[in-house]
Amino acid sequence: MLTVAYMGNRTIGLQTAHPLPPGPLEVRIRVAYVGLCGTDLHIVHGSMDRRVHVPLTFGHEMSGTVDARGDGVDGWAVGDKVTVMPLVWDGTCPACRAGNRHVCQNLNFIGIDSPGALQALWNVPAFTLVKVPQNTDLRAAALIEPVAVAVHDVRRGRVSEGDKVVVVGGGPIGLIIATVARHFGGDVTVVELDPTRRALAVDLGFTAQHPQSLDDPTWLNEWTSGAGADIVFEVSGAAAGIGLAIAVAKVRGTIVVVGIHPEPRAVDLQRIFWRELTIVGARVYEQTDFEAAVELVSSGVIPTEVLITRVVPLAETQAGLDELQAGTAMKVLIDVQAGQPAQDASS
Amino acid sequence: MLTVAYMGNRTIGLQTAHPLPPGPLEVRIRVAYVGLCGTDLHIVHGSMDRRVHVPLTFGHEMSGTVDARGDGVDGWAVGDKVTVMPLVWDGTCPACRAGNRHVCQNLNFIGIDSPGALQALWNVPAFTLVKVPQNTDLRAAALIEPVAVAVHDVRRGRVSEGDKVVVVGGGPIGLIIATVARHFGGDVTVVELDPTRRALAVDLGFTAQHPQSLDDPTWLNEWTSGAGADIVFEVSGAAAGIGLAIAVAKVRGTIVVVGIHPEPRAVDLQRIFWRELTIVGARVYEQTDFEAAVELVSSGVIPTEVLITRVVPLAETQAGLDELQAGTAMKVLIDVQAGQPAQDASS
Repeated sequence: MLTVAYMGNRTIGLQTAHPLPPGPLEVRIRVAYVGLCGTDLHIVHGSMDRRVHVPLTFGHEMSGTVDARGDGVDGWAVGDKVTVMPLVWDGTCPACRAGNRHVCQNLNFIGIDSPGALQALWNVPAFTLVKVPQNTDLRAAALIEPVAVAVHDVRRGRVSEGDKVVVVGGGPIGLIIATVARHFGGDVTVVELDPTRRALAVDLGFTAQHPQSLDDPTWLNEWTSGAGADIVFEVSGAAAGIGLAIAVAKVRGTIVVVGIHPEPRAVDLQRIFWRELTIVGARVYEQTDFEAAVELVSSGVIPTEVLITRVVPLAETQAGLDELQAGTAMKVLIDVQAGQPAQDASS
Repeated sequence: MLTVAYMGNRTIGLQTAHPLPPGPLEVRIRVAYVGLCGTDLHIVHGSMDRRVHVPLTFGHEMSGTVDARGDGVDGWAVGDKVTVMPLVWDGTCPACRAGNRHVCQNLNFIGIDSPGALQALWNVPAFTLVKVPQNTDLRAAALIEPVAVAVHDVRRGRVSEGDKVVVVGGGPIGLIIATVARHFGGDVTVVELDPTRRALAVDLGFTAQHPQSLDDPTWLNEWTSGAGADIVFEVSGAAAGIGLAIAVAKVRGTIVVVGIHPEPRAVDLQRIFWRELTIVGARVYEQTDFEAAVELVSSGVIPTEVLITRVVPLAETQAGLDELQAGTAMKVLIDVQAGQPAQDASS
């Protein structure tokens, strides 16, 4: 079978591998689609070289079907549609013992710390599988993982009916957060520099603003009756993003830090103090987030057709990464089965 | 009567004024003691010149007795021991309407935005009065306001039984927060540069550490079984303080921003994200905090005798401020009645 791996030195390679049977308590998945995301870009750009072991088959946003079951696996049938919650915790660290296994202090994130989904037949621990309804399109199902991220973020922000929500950054995760926040009852404005992304946000029914619109915050004051936003999601990862998030939050408002900030940022602690703001970090997801995400994708709440810009075969993964890097795509999916050697079709 | 006011240009002045009768719904207080605090230093150093109107009679940590009642005031008798919760909210702004009057967007903080307690006879709105038990020492009662700050901070941090608590900064507010956090069940370590303050923290029964001790966090790991602190109070106001607070907090731990940070600080948002930390601002207090503070001071939980370094007459306010600035004192109280002209004694 063909796989795509990060080879080190900022390069990826198409490789040939022999599918292995699933080990005990493992399931082998016939991978259908893999979504590329910002973390994959960080990997292939070498920003995570100190963490990853090469060659690394990456990819962690995926959909597929059960292909084979290892010893001791119950509850799954060949052909079942599935996705994977790619977290393996140790169960013994202080975070796990406190009930926060998703942020285990020794977390194995599958696709970063161990081999991911960019391979035709992929063995994973059975406990990572999440059931997808049989009538759910497998392209749409590849978005369940990022939707679970968004559900987790929205739950961390405690969005509820009538809340005024600002999302700073209108990329894929930003727009999915906006969609989920609206589903939870929020009234959402997306703040985004890029006019194409603002237009897409408007197409999806959100208000969209350029960051400079806050030089005169009349719109914010009118929208929130002078209070400011109840909840702000900082998804941009930009230095200016956190400043903007803090500026627009109401007294006792909440700012959820979703974006990756590789360097320390200048933060106005005086305003956090003065307005009694709350800043919360939100990372990955819990089981309940994944289950909610399955429902949101399967029921059509998430506009997956709008968010999936392109689907390319495995051999064109580099082109997909390039398009993501250029910022001209929302989601690029890899069709993992397209172009696989024929003998693997029944392996 | 004699009063002390900030005159502008970083100077204070001893002034003579005629006591006025209390207006409608006001109470005139015979001020006993006024505690000097960091905010008073900011005022007299000119850091708040854009906010204050000079001459400003400052002072907001106080104790006294009811001297006279204006029209329409019920429920208070001459001679009642009282303190003042020095907040006047507008009741109409979004923060007030949301139930957060203490952080009213147009808050009048008495002693900063309007005349404070450094005067023998002081008129305040009756609703700002808080009853002090008649057997409570009036020196101790002058600490009720900073204790209310600490109660508010500890409530914002949700300290509960068994929590590992770190207080960054062992000044007066830091040690009062440590005391209140312990009262709420916390196991408290104070991190402080100054050896005299560390020694005082130890005298009060806390563990104390130099910030550099975190270069090797063995003590933290042993104390918290590798988890990190449940709740951290950033009271230092120093650039390094917030970094230290974020470094010692456990996964899903809480950092309460108490100290004043006049400039934006470099903050490790990546760690906030990675460990799903929560940062909360905590400012002033609510009625319930003040009532709890009265109880904590009156019952002797707060070691007021240890915290009150010196009591000086009104005419020596400058010396008291100097001692506070030098960092050689914890609390300096002004004895407002000492040295007042005799004719005011019965006015």
